[in-house]
Amino acid sequence: MAKLLSGTEAARSLTDQLQLRCSELKKRGVIPSLCILRVGSDPGDLSYEKGAGKRCEMCGIRLKTIHLSGDVLQEELLQVIRQQNEDPSVHGVLLLRPLPSGIDAHLTANTLLPSKDVDGMTDLSLSGLITGTKTGFAPCTAEAAMAILDHYGIDAAGKRAVVIGRSLVFGKPAALMLTQRNATVTLCHSKTADLPSIARQADLLVVACGQARMAGRDFFRPGQIVIDVGIHQGEDGRLCGDVKFDEAQGIVDAITPVPGGVGAVTTTILAKHVVEAADKADE
Amino acid sequence: MAKLLSGTEAARSLTDQLQLRCSELKKRGVIPSLCILRVGSDPGDLSYEKGAGKRCEMCGIRLKTIHLSGDVLQEELLQVIRQQNEDPSVHGVLLLRPLPSGIDAHLTANTLLPSKDVDGMTDLSLSGLITGTKTGFAPCTAEAAMAILDHYGIDAAGKRAVVIGRSLVFGKPAALMLTQRNATVTLCHSKTADLPSIARQADLLVVACGQARMAGRDFFRPGQIVIDVGIHQGEDGRLCGDVKFDEAQGIVDAITPVPGGVGAVTTTILAKHVVEAADKADE
Repeated sequence: MAKLLSGTEAARSLTDQLQLRCSELKKRGVIPSLCILRVGSDPGDLSYEKGAGKRCEMCGIRLKTIHLSGDVLQEELLQVIRQQNEDPSVHGVLLLRPLPSGIDAHLTANTLLPSKDVDGMTDLSLSGLITGTKTGFAPCTAEAAMAILDHYGIDAAGKRAVVIGRSLVFGKPAALMLTQRNATVTLCHSKTADLPSIARQADLLVVACGQARMAGRDFFRPGQIVIDVGIHQGEDGRLCGDVKFDEAQGIVDAITPVPGGVGAVTTTILAKHVVEAADKADE
Repeated sequence: MAKLLSGTEAARSLTDQLQLRCSELKKRGVIPSLCILRVGSDPGDLSYEKGAGKRCEMCGIRLKTIHLSGDVLQEELLQVIRQQNEDPSVHGVLLLRPLPSGIDAHLTANTLLPSKDVDGMTDLSLSGLITGTKTGFAPCTAEAAMAILDHYGIDAAGKRAVVIGRSLVFGKPAALMLTQRNATVTLCHSKTADLPSIARQADLLVVACGQARMAGRDFFRPGQIVIDVGIHQGEDGRLCGDVKFDEAQGIVDAITPVPGGVGAVTTTILAKHVVEAADKADE
């Protein structure tokens, strides 16, 4: 049976470190603070907001939430973001997405200061993934996958990594982060031919295609490490990932569970970014 | 024998189109203008400056060159860039690189307005490669490789592409551009294990490792399209690429020559960006 790479454990260890860093910042008179900005009342947003808030409080981060109506005007939303930019007591801003269809998502995201962009949604945060410089922050879920590798001492260098899914919030950032870690990365997507055979070539297989239980037996071989980034409510009502866990765990060396995998680390990375932003702002 | 993918021909065809676009812009009173900014007197810079100038003049682009001494102060250089940013008669700025060691290259590049960044060196130009939006411009050499594919009607969609070399000016941008074109891209580099066998998996092999004649017989198989991005003076005094051309041409389906390949298109893409920048500025 495959070894379980527990996101819950990785998150616990990171949270311990963040509590220490928060205490130290407080000694310097700095209370790391996050503003969560939600437009509308999407149930997924509400659930993520709750989880993020809980984790931040565990770490010692002060929380402010702003809730705007789903029919907010573009200019009103930008104005709220500009106010957070100017407010020195706010170190990071999490804007929950997707935004309503009437809102220009690119303009809205890029109104936020990169120094407060704790979920890596501005162009300047994303460019940092290409240049390898610390401009802004990486998207939290992509960094959460890296944090699980780090927690279990898995060195990506020299490995063949296959990332399935080329989204802006996960696939492309994760591919660039793994390249930065000296993995040889293949980025697959909906137009990839013969996906299972490419997946089997991976030493490190990262599945983020957004389809419940997409990756089955033919994607795996012994020796692989599998990171499952999906989270879905399966037909049987149980939570599941993009991977057919039951088929993978008998074949591969190690795998993240769902729930309790990557998703369990994402809000802790968010908290880490807030602490880093507060630390930088105080320099 | 492999079909030759001639950059010279692709450049000629693009130049014809650019001459037309320049004439049309001139009818509207707009003369596309490029400022080449050179620090010091590196022979490679001088040669590229000469080639770029000649190509721009062929297209109908007005040229201005600014030459600063190799011991220029950081602030003086930034001031010159700011002046070009503010000058409405300058549509694009090409800053020759690498810059002298005393100069902060990242700060210098990012002082340039992305709208005038015709060689894709600002963070915002690079972020456009991830987001797929038209923010700034792509690095010219990476786009030159795409232009050769376009000229010969080669559709990257569904193909396995392997890019060797992860530089900021070519490898990473080219990998992202090929992903955008629906290729399944593997990005290789100095830490990649068993490079020849990965290279052989490519339908489209793009070699940009910066080592003369690095890729030999064992990198190739029949059916491949090979793009050679290197240019070096070989030990025998002849120009050569990163590929052992003599070994490749008997095996693969199509290959770019060196000289007369990607390098022959780069300055034409620069000219294209200047025309696009002038067109946008006039909107």
